[in-house]
Amino acid sequence: MNMVDLIVKKRDGHALTPEEVSYIVEAYVKDAIPDYQMSAFLMAVFFQGMSEEETVALTRTMMDSGDQMDLSAIKGVVVDKHSTGGVGDTTTLVLAPWLAACGIPVAKMSGRGLGHTGGTIDKMESIPGFRVELTMEEFVSNVNKIGLALAGQTGSIAPADKKIYALRDVTGTVEQKALIASSIMSKKLASGAGAILLDVKVGSGAFMKNLEDGIALAKSMVDIGNAMGRETKAILSSMDQPLGKAVGNSLEVMEAIKVLQGEEKGDLYYLCLELAKEMMLLSLADMTSKKAEEILLDRLESGKAHDKFLEFVALQGGDVEKLREGLPVGSYRKRLTAENDGYVAKVEASAVGLAAMHLGAGRETKDSIIDLGAGLRIWKRIGDPVAKGELLAELYTNDEDKLLEARNLLKDAFVIEKNQKTTSPLLLGKVDRNGVELWDEDHYRT
Amino acid sequence: MNMVDLIVKKRDGHALTPEEVSYIVEAYVKDAIPDYQMSAFLMAVFFQGMSEEETVALTRTMMDSGDQMDLSAIKGVVVDKHSTGGVGDTTTLVLAPWLAACGIPVAKMSGRGLGHTGGTIDKMESIPGFRVELTMEEFVSNVNKIGLALAGQTGSIAPADKKIYALRDVTGTVEQKALIASSIMSKKLASGAGAILLDVKVGSGAFMKNLEDGIALAKSMVDIGNAMGRETKAILSSMDQPLGKAVGNSLEVMEAIKVLQGEEKGDLYYLCLELAKEMMLLSLADMTSKKAEEILLDRLESGKAHDKFLEFVALQGGDVEKLREGLPVGSYRKRLTAENDGYVAKVEASAVGLAAMHLGAGRETKDSIIDLGAGLRIWKRIGDPVAKGELLAELYTNDEDKLLEARNLLKDAFVIEKNQKTTSPLLLGKVDRNGVELWDEDHYRT
Repeated sequence: MNMVDLIVKKRDGHALTPEEVSYIVEAYVKDAIPDYQMSAFLMAVFFQGMSEEETVALTRTMMDSGDQMDLSAIKGVVVDKHSTGGVGDTTTLVLAPWLAACGIPVAKMSGRGLGHTGGTIDKMESIPGFRVELTMEEFVSNVNKIGLALAGQTGSIAPADKKIYALRDVTGTVEQKALIASSIMSKKLASGAGAILLDVKVGSGAFMKNLEDGIALAKSMVDIGNAMGRETKAILSSMDQPLGKAVGNSLEVMEAIKVLQGEEKGDLYYLCLELAKEMMLLSLADMTSKKAEEILLDRLESGKAHDKFLEFVALQGGDVEKLREGLPVGSYRKRLTAENDGYVAKVEASAVGLAAMHLGAGRETKDSIIDLGAGLRIWKRIGDPVAKGELLAELYTNDEDKLLEARNLLKDAFVIEKNQKTTSPLLLGKVDRNGVELWDEDHYRT
Repeated sequence: MNMVDLIVKKRDGHALTPEEVSYIVEAYVKDAIPDYQMSAFLMAVFFQGMSEEETVALTRTMMDSGDQMDLSAIKGVVVDKHSTGGVGDTTTLVLAPWLAACGIPVAKMSGRGLGHTGGTIDKMESIPGFRVELTMEEFVSNVNKIGLALAGQTGSIAPADKKIYALRDVTGTVEQKALIASSIMSKKLASGAGAILLDVKVGSGAFMKNLEDGIALAKSMVDIGNAMGRETKAILSSMDQPLGKAVGNSLEVMEAIKVLQGEEKGDLYYLCLELAKEMMLLSLADMTSKKAEEILLDRLESGKAHDKFLEFVALQGGDVEKLREGLPVGSYRKRLTAENDGYVAKVEASAVGLAAMHLGAGRETKDSIIDLGAGLRIWKRIGDPVAKGELLAELYTNDEDKLLEARNLLKDAFVIEKNQKTTSPLLLGKVDRNGVELWDEDHYRT
């Protein structure tokens, strides 16, 4: 096959065959296709899109390019969850022990964070002693022992995706649905879970700015997963403002503990409850939504979910005593207060994320060292009334020089207006093999 | 400036500033922007196009990347002509001596051919002894002495275009109007002519398949030229079939001589007459179209145009005696005859070009060696009646092994049908700073 012909075929709006898609990926990985042809091809895909057949072929070839985890030694159906990326999204830390406490096996491979989106691995490492480098045997044995293990993603999962993503990142070809969907799904499928739940974020702080784009991305991923023989569903959730009240590694761990203790009932809690229910339905054939909710609420109220978290931390070497005392946060702090009376109209998630990254909570480049105690607490959400001088947020860092600029970044994230605005509901809908179901405003309160 | 931001800006349909366009070209030439970012940018341009301001900035920066010829020592206004590429297009060989015989200075820099499109330099080199490597002093002095000189393009004309074109060629980004226009115009403008006439080919054998695209390309180039302070016009001409009867180097030289001797009055002649008139109007302020035609016809009928050609050949070292005897053509020959009665419906120019290239008349790669005696003579044109067994074309080569496949390629170029078809007229219209003028069918016969 001739790469120029394939570029032109895509450029002119024709669908490639699965063989042609596979050829491109395999030849690119082997350096038989140069970067400059691949980037031209990716830009043509940006404009012309990919059919479902092309997207499945792309996903399969990227998945097959590396190792595939064999989780067959784990008892029960492992359900993996993936979020398309948000700010203050601590769902994994809550879901993992909560589900394990319900008897659902949780075998979680996770990445480190880059940019303003935090990684679960980084968050857990803010607990002194916690180890994420498990052998495959340890990983499987931990799941079978306590129902739960977390390990860092190995480098051999979907290396083709890694190479292609690195090129997309520097050629303006990241924001394309088929490419996003296949990138996520190739890694999820290679990670060996029996079923997959996707949390697709929609809103100003997400890749997908509107519901229509979010639905399209969700459908694409759900179609890929099901075409590859793994039951796959997606929840559409709002990302117009940070999900939880905390942004930053230690801060998010402590917020997750509050949720697991039943002390925190905001958006983070409700999203976790919804995701956990769906994951139980995906894992257990005879489960109903009502029964799942009953079990989940019991595990929270009885303290078993919180206990499971401590058991999990201990088994992976974490210092439970230090965790109980509260993890240390940055010693330099600053408060952001309202400059006038009114209602919060915006808490721009991406600006909040940038402020947190600037404080040291995230990586600006792959080699940046994270300040585990750095971050923010956000005290007001969209629609909340505020009085002049009232506390909006607090900043934490161990590098005093960062405080002022971070505060200015954060200040721009908040917009206060005279009239009260409503925001979109947290839970927007669901996509599964049967199609799209959109929810009304009160879905998560019922 | 950040290249990823500039790629995304173009990708999302925004116009770049002239400074941004110049930055991209200059940084790319210096290897400060890698090929893979440039190719993604070029593909984004393919889909989003470029404004006139962007195209002018691109042209200017590519022009400024190398040497600019100084033709100020030449008396009179030098008019350059450029064709967007066709098969059997021998116009330069006819126009140069014809205009010189009319007192118009002709200072022609030309390239070698690549692919199935022949280069003027290659054609002239089929005359034994003819030299195209002139010093700048020789070049100017020859023009001032006999009104005419032809030299090979030096490597230092618009090197940025050369580098960008090489990348476009392998990334499926050739066929884009702003990129084609700026590539052509950067070289023409650097070549130092005072005015420029463009021959934009339209049809199945050209880059521009339909009149609308041809007009758009012509407008783009005319706008660039005039924006850069050089009077620029374009003629739109048909390329549904080869222009002349000959394709191949020696064969085309001999056909040009026939036109200069007034013995050949087909499409090649009529296009040359039209282009020559326009070039006289561009060079001489007080010229009229009627007067130009009178002078041109006189120089043909009096033999002065043909004499000028011989004078030109002699001054650049060519063997005029051998030329008078007729240049040698390939010693292996084959005839293509009609397989049934009917009318010629198609003589596919690109297929004819490929057949000629296969015979040895063109370069498949930059390093191919041309067989100067190879090529074709085409005896039938679209609309001509043919009887079974009648001669359609003859093939010439010095490599007997090439004959059979070339004949098969050529056979596919000819389509004979029961009913007579008309083809589009040769001369389609004109574009200048005042706009587009489309001509009716009989323009060139009146």
